[in-house]
Order: sequence, then C-alpha cells, then structure tokens
Amino acid sequence: MVRRTVLPGGVRVLSEAMPGLRSATIGFWVGVGSRDETTGHHGSTHFLEHLLFKGTTRRSAMDIATAFDRVGGESNAVTGKEHTCYYARVLDEDLPMAVDVLCDMVTGARLDAGDVENERGVILEELAMNDDDPADVVHERFAELVLGQHPLGRPIGGTPETIRAVGRDSIAAHYAEHYQAPGLVVTVAGGVDHDRVCELVSESLARSGWKLDADHAPYGRRDVSDPEREEVSPAEDGTPHRLVVVNRSTEQANVVVGTTSLVATDPRRYAMSVLNAVLGGGMSSRLFQEIREQRGLAYSVYSFASGYSDSGYFGLYAGCTPARVDEVIALMVAELRRLAADGVPEEELHRAHGQLAGGLVLGLEDTGSRMSRLGKAELVHGEYLGMDKALDRIRSVTAEEVRALAADLASRPLSLAVVGPFDEDRPFRVS
Amino acid sequence: MVRRTVLPGGVRVLSEAMPGLRSATIGFWVGVGSRDETTGHHGSTHFLEHLLFKGTTRRSAMDIATAFDRVGGESNAVTGKEHTCYYARVLDEDLPMAVDVLCDMVTGARLDAGDVENERGVILEELAMNDDDPADVVHERFAELVLGQHPLGRPIGGTPETIRAVGRDSIAAHYAEHYQAPGLVVTVAGGVDHDRVCELVSESLARSGWKLDADHAPYGRRDVSDPEREEVSPAEDGTPHRLVVVNRSTEQANVVVGTTSLVATDPRRYAMSVLNAVLGGGMSSRLFQEIREQRGLAYSVYSFASGYSDSGYFGLYAGCTPARVDEVIALMVAELRRLAADGVPEEELHRAHGQLAGGLVLGLEDTGSRMSRLGKAELVHGEYLGMDKALDRIRSVTAEEVRALAADLASRPLSLAVVGPFDEDRPFRVS
Repeated sequence: MVRRTVLPGGVRVLSEAMPGLRSATIGFWVGVGSRDETTGHHGSTHFLEHLLFKGTTRRSAMDIATAFDRVGGESNAVTGKEHTCYYARVLDEDLPMAVDVLCDMVTGARLDAGDVENERGVILEELAMNDDDPADVVHERFAELVLGQHPLGRPIGGTPETIRAVGRDSIAAHYAEHYQAPGLVVTVAGGVDHDRVCELVSESLARSGWKLDADHAPYGRRDVSDPEREEVSPAEDGTPHRLVVVNRSTEQANVVVGTTSLVATDPRRYAMSVLNAVLGGGMSSRLFQEIREQRGLAYSVYSFASGYSDSGYFGLYAGCTPARVDEVIALMVAELRRLAADGVPEEELHRAHGQLAGGLVLGLEDTGSRMSRLGKAELVHGEYLGMDKALDRIRSVTAEEVRALAADLASRPLSLAVVGPFDEDRPFRVS
Repeated sequence: MVRRTVLPGGVRVLSEAMPGLRSATIGFWVGVGSRDETTGHHGSTHFLEHLLFKGTTRRSAMDIATAFDRVGGESNAVTGKEHTCYYARVLDEDLPMAVDVLCDMVTGARLDAGDVENERGVILEELAMNDDDPADVVHERFAELVLGQHPLGRPIGGTPETIRAVGRDSIAAHYAEHYQAPGLVVTVAGGVDHDRVCELVSESLARSGWKLDADHAPYGRRDVSDPEREEVSPAEDGTPHRLVVVNRSTEQANVVVGTTSLVATDPRRYAMSVLNAVLGGGMSSRLFQEIREQRGLAYSVYSFASGYSDSGYFGLYAGCTPARVDEVIALMVAELRRLAADGVPEEELHRAHGQLAGGLVLGLEDTGSRMSRLGKAELVHGEYLGMDKALDRIRSVTAEEVRALAADLASRPLSLAVVGPFDEDRPFRVS
C-alpha cells in the first residue's frame, strides 16, 4: 500500500510497505537535474551530488562512508537530467540511521573549498572513464544530436572543460537555490511503516537548518524549455538529418539511430513500451532476431526510449564490426519502417503485453525498483498508478496504436551517431 | 530452508523456499568451465553456452526466446572458469515452463552447423566489445599474467583466433563429454516447493535423451592442474615480477596489481573477505579513502579476490590519469604492505565484520543470489553453510588472521597489468 504525506515546509514523503521484508530502500529526491543548469555551470548538478558525500556540518566524509559500511548497507546517488536521487538500501533496523545520514547530506552539505578541488579530480576521472567506453560515448553524442540546442541534450556530467571551469561559488549557489524543503521528495519501500518514516524524516529535518514554513507548496517543474531550440525538417536524400561521427580506434562500430519522441507524460507512453518490446526489448524482439540471431552481425542490439517533461528521444543501438556498419544501420531503420508500414500481428502484440506485465510484477519484489517508481510517480508523472491500473494500461494498448506511433517516429528526421574507426567526414545513409 | 535431492542418474537438485515470494530463480549448472578446455578448443565452453540458446531437437531459437519473453521472465547464462550456469527468473506460476525449457536446452542442444557459423560472428562481436572496454582488458591480462601457464589464467571467451578456428565437431565433443546427468546441478530459490521442483526436473529429464542410470555418482571436479605451471620467485629490484603493458589511446590508465591467492576452499577465505573489505571493499575502505577521497586520483578503485579449486588471485584495481599512474600504483601497493605490517585496529575490524554480515543478510531477499549461493555450495565448497554459521565464521575472523594473510600476500611476487597510452616497453615499479 502506498501512502503519501506532505510535511510542514512542503517535503513530500511516499512509502510503500512490503510485509515480510527485513530491508528497505530509501531515496531522497531533489527535482533538479543537468537541464536546470545555466551556461557556464554545466555539470554542477552532478558535481554537487559528489560533494554531498564529502561531509556536512555534523559529519565528515569518513563518517558518512562508515555509517553505511558498518551495517553492510549500499548507498549511492544518481544525477539525471531532471532529478537527483540519494539512496540507500539497509536492514529495517538501520532505517533511522539511513534517514538521518541522507537527510543530513541533503540539508547540511559543507561544500568545503578543498573538497571541491579534490572532487574535481575524481569527476574528471569519472568523465575520462566514460569517455573510454564507446557505448557510453555514442549514447551521449546521440542525445546531444537528436535534441539539438535543447538543455535536455547536454551530457549530465558536463565536459572536462566545464568541470575545470566551474567554481565552488556557483555550485554553492546551485545548492542554495534548488535544495529546499518544497523541492524534496522522500520515498521508501520495504519493511517500513509510513507514520514512523514521516516521524524520522521530520526529526531529521528539525535538526537541519532548513526553513520549514507551513505555507510552502511543493515545487512543480519550472518551464525551462530552451526558446532557441532548433526546429528541423526531414532530409529527403537518405542522409540522416543530423550526423555525428566520432573517430576512435575501437574494434567495434557503436551506432545509435533515432528521433525525437514522446514526453514522459504522453498518454502514448504505454504504446511506446509495447513498441519498444516488439522492436528491440528482448531475445524475441525483431532487432535481436534479425540482426543477431539470423545474421550474427551484433552481440548487443536493442531499442530504447527516454521521456522527459518537455521532450524525449527514441533510438536503436548496435555494436558491430566496422565493415558491416552500413548494413546494420540499414537493417535497423528497415525494421522501424516495417513496423510503421505493416504494424504488429496479434500474437506478437500479446507477447509484448505479457513481457511488460510479467516484468512489472517481477519488479515488485525489489525494494529499489519500488522506491524508484514512487519517486518517478511524484516527480515525473504527478500520479501514482497502482499495479492493477498499470497492467490494464499495458494490456489495453492496441496493434493500431503501436503502428501509428511507429509511423509517427518513422516520419521524423533521423539522427545518427557513430563511434568507431571512421573518418569524421565519412558519409552515412539511413535508407 | 535448504533441501537437496540426488535424482536417478546423479542429477542434484537443491532448493531454498522463500515464503511469501511470488517469483523464483532457477539455475541449471554444469561443472565445466574454460579451464577444462584442451589446447585448440579455447573458448568452446562459452561458444557452447551461446549455442544452447540456438535451439534443441524440440524447440527453435525463437521458441526459447518467446517462452521467456511472453511471461516477462529474464533468462541468461554465464560461463565461468570452472562452471557454466543457465538461469531464469520467473513468476512462480511459470516455473514449470522455465524448468522444461532450461532442461531441454541443456539436454537436447541441436548444435546445427549453420547456427555455429552465425553464432561465431556474434561471439566475435562480444569479444570485440570486451576488447573495447579497457577495464575488462586489464582484468583479463592480469589473470593471464598472475597465473602464468595455469589453465585458470586463460580468458573465458577464448580469443578471436581460437574462436575463428574452433570447429562444430569439437564443440559437440565438449558437449557430449561434459553435459551428462552426474555433472548437472539444478538450484532454485523463491516461492517454490522442493518436491514439486524435483518432480518437474525428473519429468523434463525423462523427456530428454540422457542416460539416467541409477548407479551414477555425481561428478566431482577432475584434477586438471597444469603440470607445466610456471613457478616464480619474487623479484628483488622493485620491478613487478611479471608485467604486461597494453598500449591503448585511452583517456585513463587502467591498472591491476596483485598476486596469486587462496583456493576457493581455503579456511582463510573468511579472513580474505575481511581483508578485502578493509583494503578496498567500500567507501570507507583504505584504498577508497586514500586514493579517491584524500587525493582525488581515481573515480573507481577497489580490491578483489577470486578463488578456484586449485588456484586463485587477489588484485588491486584503479583507473587514473596516465600522468599519475606510477603514484597510484605505489599508493596501492603501500596500502597492502601497511596492512601486512601494522594489521587492522579493532574498530576497523568490527566495521568490516558488520559490512560483510549486513551484506549477507541483505542478499537473502534476492532469489538470484540465493540460487547462486546454492550452486556454489554444491559445486565449489561441497557444503552448504546456513546463514547463522556463515555469520559466525565472518565474525570470528581476528585482526591477527587478517594481518597474517596480508603479510602472506605481500610476500608473494607482484604482477602488474597496465592498459593505457604507454609504450609497451615503458618500465613500471611496484615499490
């Protein structure tokens, strides 16, 4: 059962009790992500996430690390394009500690100047590690490419240049602006009691220096669409509308081809899930069967969709031998177009329904995925959908809805990102 | 509660019922891994693992894929150095299907010649993908280096050369030799009943063509130690005893430094777990604190230990900027030597006890980790240790045992593997 409480100051607490479990996962969500950064501060949201582990007015970095390690808990954080989440998985008896430490990190960050310099080095190493992963690079470059000048297109972690440039003061300003009670959402799932969680969060907030005025309403997402977002029209000649080729001396070519897609709240998002399952969501999907099973051209091949508050994108990924890259791109695009033209037979549609429904039910046993569902319900969708309703929405997606969505996507200009041993001016085609 | 039954023919079934869960993870384990391959067939165990998904005498590859996809199940397989495991996570109502499909794959593989050629391409792409991941490369090269000519040192997947060379017949011979009833172990954890699992496995085996003579005893591991294994003595001059440098135009240097270590059944393996937690097992560990928190030299830094039936290795990993690689190697080795010289204070020891104990208890809620514990108990340790006993063994590890083990490791010749933008004859030191 899911319960929701708004505490004084506007802090929202959502919990889901899972009887019989001895563990809980708790997340402290802040509704700010890389898209909310202004020019010159790119990467500061992620930088701040790192710094919250470096100490508070009450705790050193070592205190934070030992608090979780001594009980075998897992704690970490993730910075997204529209939110940041600090989380921990612990035994139920350690939940009071987890609430207190996470709350202290979020409300009382020290942001020491020396720590900023040390952590700058760590983040530069993280960026370098990601840059050494060609699959990571192709996804980042595809997002930049397909969203053009939109702030959602930027890489979450910033770039080495922006990380070297960002100052302690602008990170502190970012913290002061966004980390406030009306922007905080706490979600918990596992062996927990809602009233007790609210009590723990209230106690920890009372120890913080945060303003907890009773009349604050929770923050919604601000409208931060970039007015300069570049509108594009489809190319007619078979070249991708946007193309980026990154030359790397890798064994494989890594490619992503795709288009803009649905916002997170689009009612067609259930049709998108089905489309994604059919096209590239499992071993029986069309991309897997056609490109891997029938032709042996790739080990990893799949489709994906990401939706945000005012934009989104959809892509097809493959890693393949460089000599066959044109063939693989053509096969992937052909599968999207075939789905748009011919739709999906009933049997395949029902398989996709079953795949999504089974996956949803299997996910119920994991405290982390439930904690995450609660956070996204609050921050992204603005509504919590019970399991029965979610299953209904999946099962009510029709073949025609999938075909129409595929046709919509296939009619948009295609962007293509390629990482591999190619000249950066090598031509590529998508038809 | 864990129950174990030996079915006619020697097939072993182990199950652990987790009341209240609606899902189950089931694994079919075969006690054969890459170490068991003979020269000229390297990579054939992993090749075979791929081919088992390509179809049986009763099912096509698409039948296998759709069986799991239509219920939202997850199925996959993993080839190790000493065992291979085919597994699936499904809702309890789908367990009969999962048993039947996995059993059919393991007992009735078609090994079609055309499928072998297609899958050869897929595996070459998998190897290419791994080769494009410098962290993967440094771990593979370290294992080769530290174990010398020992068959455990070889990469599990083979090399592009051995994969191109291996023929359908030698894969089929490998299958016929190792995939037999006395070598099969089935483990299940979740919402299951032991007697029902035994019934399902028996029914599926009866449909197979396998010999199920009642007088077969389960296979133990054969003695396959390489008599030509190279014995080495420590170098005296500060150069690592063995060194490999792989030149790659990466942003980061990836390094692993380490030694041979304990076999899987060594009674000191609990001390090794504690040593590993203290040195490089979490955010409060010495490597993390010294190299990441204090100096900002790395994003990813940790220690690891792998034990097998007759050998094992222990290593320290970091990814860092190439200009600081010598400093990072020196810092890592200094931490190992400091632990060997000064041991571990009581408070830090107790933190490590708590970390391992908490992690063990948290892992109990995951059907996959319980399924895996059962398989390893049967195939690796030859005994199943209940949770209370496992916790006791962890908590009884003393500071002196950890120090003595660190001293043992620090006295062995150190091997060093480096991947990054370095000449392959660049000198490296470990002291």
